[in-house]
Amino acid sequence: MLVLFEGIDTSGKTTQIERLKSTNADIKTTFEPGATKLGKELRTILLEKDLKINATAELLLFLADRAEHYEKIIVPNADKLVISDRGFLSGIAYALTNNQNLDISFLIEVNRFALGGKLPDKILFFKTTKELLNSRIKTKSHDKIESRGIEYLLKVQENMEKVLKKTDIEYIILDANESIESLHVKVKMFLDGAF
Amino acid sequence: MLVLFEGIDTSGKTTQIERLKSTNADIKTTFEPGATKLGKELRTILLEKDLKINATAELLLFLADRAEHYEKIIVPNADKLVISDRGFLSGIAYALTNNQNLDISFLIEVNRFALGGKLPDKILFFKTTKELLNSRIKTKSHDKIESRGIEYLLKVQENMEKVLKKTDIEYIILDANESIESLHVKVKMFLDGAF
Repeated sequence: MLVLFEGIDTSGKTTQIERLKSTNADIKTTFEPGATKLGKELRTILLEKDLKINATAELLLFLADRAEHYEKIIVPNADKLVISDRGFLSGIAYALTNNQNLDISFLIEVNRFALGGKLPDKILFFKTTKELLNSRIKTKSHDKIESRGIEYLLKVQENMEKVLKKTDIEYIILDANESIESLHVKVKMFLDGAF
Repeated sequence: MLVLFEGIDTSGKTTQIERLKSTNADIKTTFEPGATKLGKELRTILLEKDLKINATAELLLFLADRAEHYEKIIVPNADKLVISDRGFLSGIAYALTNNQNLDISFLIEVNRFALGGKLPDKILFFKTTKELLNSRIKTKSHDKIESRGIEYLLKVQENMEKVLKKTDIEYIILDANESIESLHVKVKMFLDGAF
């Protein structure tokens, strides 16, 4: 089973993945982008180099990373609970934020293609607020995407929720303002039966 | 106007582009993959590094290269006759050869997306024979794709023709066995009015 933990930076998803993993070592945890050899090359190109890549090419590079991640990490671990820190929902939400004219159904279709025809089984969406984001982002180092600003990230978050509701994937929306332990209980309940 | 010169390696398309350019310096000539800064990075990843990239990711990387090429080279030269040595037809043909289960209509759709919604205006397809390919390939250095062999390249050529006939783009099929000057005359006639 493939489960995505989604949300913008500082929404707490990575903390929850680590908390969950600490209760069950059999869970396979992974992330996008950059979890494969190809992904590392692409992550360098996408996040660090000053290439001024156009939005369509950027979208396609994230999709290539996703396809390689699917084949090299998700497929070989299909017998486990695989938890990915980000996935196609981030991909589509960033793409839509960069170009409002994109068609969500088309984006879902090309992501399905990158994922061997199959979208993830469940999504946990960590939703933050402007106030929390402001206070948390000050303590983090910024990469190129984060540096686009608070308003940009909130727009990405809004698009994540919009796309989430367009798919027929089972999901839960979690409030990033809740405590780590309170969120952990909700995460476990939502994933009950999966491990 | 955007015109593709298509065909597998050694089919003579590059020679014809150079011959045509020598008659008219105003023609903008370009190529895929690897004509942009991003393209150079991707070409290195695709052709040289031993990453064993899966076929879907490879297809998406070529598409990213195509999208960047469109934005950085084709759009800024829209007032000229732009001639590209390879393009989406090669992209789809290689993809189909690597995975017969792919849907041609879907592939055309994602290529149209990479090309800002618009396919090229004209295609010149240089078609070779097994005998000519055999004799010519011995004199060329092989990169990773060429090294897949003669039968592979002939299958790519077959798929190029199949896809060409599925689009509604104006095209001509040229016989690689003809002389450079004879082909040049036909190229000029086909492009008459474009420059």
